[in-house]
This record gives sequence, C-alpha cells and structure tokens, in this order.
Amino acid sequence: MNRIITISREFGSGGRELGRLIAAKLGYAYYDKEIVSRIAERSEMTETYVQNVLEQKPFLTLPIHVGVSLEPTADPLLMQSQELFQLQCSILKEVAEKSDCVIVGRCADYILSDCHPFRIFVYAEMESRLRRCRETEGVGQDLSDRELRNQILGVDRQRSDYYEFCTGNKWSDRLNYDICVNSTNIPLEELAESVAMVVRASKNS
Amino acid sequence: MNRIITISREFGSGGRELGRLIAAKLGYAYYDKEIVSRIAERSEMTETYVQNVLEQKPFLTLPIHVGVSLEPTADPLLMQSQELFQLQCSILKEVAEKSDCVIVGRCADYILSDCHPFRIFVYAEMESRLRRCRETEGVGQDLSDRELRNQILGVDRQRSDYYEFCTGNKWSDRLNYDICVNSTNIPLEELAESVAMVVRASKNS
Repeated sequence: MNRIITISREFGSGGRELGRLIAAKLGYAYYDKEIVSRIAERSEMTETYVQNVLEQKPFLTLPIHVGVSLEPTADPLLMQSQELFQLQCSILKEVAEKSDCVIVGRCADYILSDCHPFRIFVYAEMESRLRRCRETEGVGQDLSDRELRNQILGVDRQRSDYYEFCTGNKWSDRLNYDICVNSTNIPLEELAESVAMVVRASKNS
Repeated sequence: MNRIITISREFGSGGRELGRLIAAKLGYAYYDKEIVSRIAERSEMTETYVQNVLEQKPFLTLPIHVGVSLEPTADPLLMQSQELFQLQCSILKEVAEKSDCVIVGRCADYILSDCHPFRIFVYAEMESRLRRCRETEGVGQDLSDRELRNQILGVDRQRSDYYEFCTGNKWSDRLNYDICVNSTNIPLEELAESVAMVVRASKNS
C-alpha cells in the first residue's frame, strides 16, 4: 500500500508550502490544486466553479408543497455538490493508488482513511498568518489588518463547515490528526525535515 | 537565557516518557515530580498533600453574614492553594534560571512564558491510553475498561480545570502550544528525536 500524507491547514499558516517541502524531502508526489483541475476536466466544468461548489457547505432546502406532497424535492444544487464530492473521492483514490503522495485539503484524511494516511494539521498565531498572507501569498495587500483577519477567519469557517458536513467529524479535533504544528516560530524547512522523520517512524506506514 | 521545554499531556498519552527522552537527547535537565518534592520541602507539608492541593481547582466560598457584613471571608483552603501556587512559581523560575530543562505539567508553559518555552502537548486515542496505563504505567490493573476510561477522563478534567483556573487559558487550545503530538501510532523514541530537531530549529530558542 502506498504511503499517504494529508495536510489540513488554517488559512495563512503555510500548510501548502509545508506539504510541498515534505513531498520534496520524501520524494513523494504532491497534490493540491491538481485535484480540482482533474474534477473540472472530468465534470466539464470550470475550475473556479468546481472550487466554489466544493468549498461551500450545501444547504438542504426542504420545500413543502401544500396539498401536493410532503416529500422534499431533490435540490439540483445539493445533487451537484454530492456528485462533485463523489468525483473528488474517486480521483483521490486513484492518486492514492498510483504512488506515495502528499495531499493538501479536500477531506483527503477522511476519504482515504482506509489507506491509514499520516494526518497533519498546520496552524499559526493570527499575527503570523496576516504576515504570511501579505508577504508570501500576495493576499490582502489592499485590506486593513481587521479586514484581512475577518477574511482569514471566514476561510477557516468555510473549511471547517465543509469538512464537518462531508465527514461528520470536527475539523479542529486534534484526534483527527497524528501531529498538529504551529508554524509561528518554526521555520518551514526544518519543520518539514522533522515531520518527514516522524512520518518515516510512524506505525501506520 | 536558558532553553525551556514544557510538556502538557493527556493522562496515559506517554507525555512524561516523551519528556524524559527529549531531555536525554538534548542533554537538558528533566523536572517532573521533583517540583512537587521541592514545594513539599519548603512548605513543610507532605508530597501527597501538596500534590492534592495543587491538582484541585480551589472553590471560592462566599459566606454571607447577614446583618454583619457582605464581604467574603478569606477561605483558608483557597489561601493555602494560592500560597502553594506562588511557591510553585518561584521554584519553576529557579530551575529555569539554573539550566536548559524539560518540565512536565505544573502550568510551566504559562508561568515561564517570559522565557519563551517550547511548548509541547501530547495526546492519544483512548484505546492507546488504556493500553499504556495498564502495560507501562501499572495503573488500572483492577479496573474494567469503562472504569479506567472514566478515571483517565477524570484526570484530564482535573488538569484542564486547574490549568484554566490558574492561567485563564484553555488547556486544550492548540494555540497555547508549538506542537501537539498524537502518540498513538508514533514510537516515543523516534518522536522524541523529531521533536528535539524541531526544538533546535525553533525561533524562540
């Protein structure tokens, strides 16, 4: 069985960069936006549209047709969301069967639980996230600290809602992860080296 | 300034053992029950008594003396608890000034925050904690799984209450730690090696 590493991360914590470094150190494949690209290709939708659908928690609508039926009508948006989630599951399973890999986001820790992935959660203090957004990720240059902070918390909430909707688990529950790292005071390069060492030693390899 | 590592841990997660291994790898002093022994010595109380006082969240009693006063009377138990906590603070500061060290528990991450300690939280799945309690720590041999589970959760709750009472922070909040490690699937020896590497690389050294 291939070795899978999954990364969940707070927005602006450097989780994506850490994933890339770990993949490079271990010689594993790295998947991030590539998963959305493949879903878009197969579903014949644009990447932006797929991304939007996959990052929103679908809302169940239950219209009641008085005098006709009390059955909820199938919501086309909910169905689309479920179909794209299924496609995401298939694609994640394909890449996990292909080779050892690092996968960022996409509920991969839950979807690939049969592969016993090594599950990492990356977080950081708000000051550090604001700085990283502006300096490294080129996000929020035109926003005040307060506005950027709200945007960061909004993305976290979206990720958390989506994860909980799809998996039934709490995104922030440490028991869903093998290691949770605070990137505030640890350089990502050295953090990646240490985490790679833990991955090599972990029993679920 | 000396380098301080603090370890908070769920009961049965192997946090104490991990601390000992990290201290050995880095050549640091290691403090665990020694802190309670020193408090007992200076306060001229027994270790068991000190341990009990320091691990219980004191309850504020506010007796109202009708017709006399509405001022709360100073509670001798609360005062004792506060005095022992102050003694604990002094002793922790002394050991932190003496040499690089690893300190297990005792709210040391909070008390020594001026020293910018590297703060570790150790946790594990319940199955693993039950096993570790029985096999390694010799606890709960005469208890059913359910009873031992309740005892484990009770100790966690006590640690959490005491930490929150003394520090005003949440014990389980990941932002209070630099790294949180799940010891369920990672051998402690290798985990200690990796954590020691992260400590060496961290900026708060």
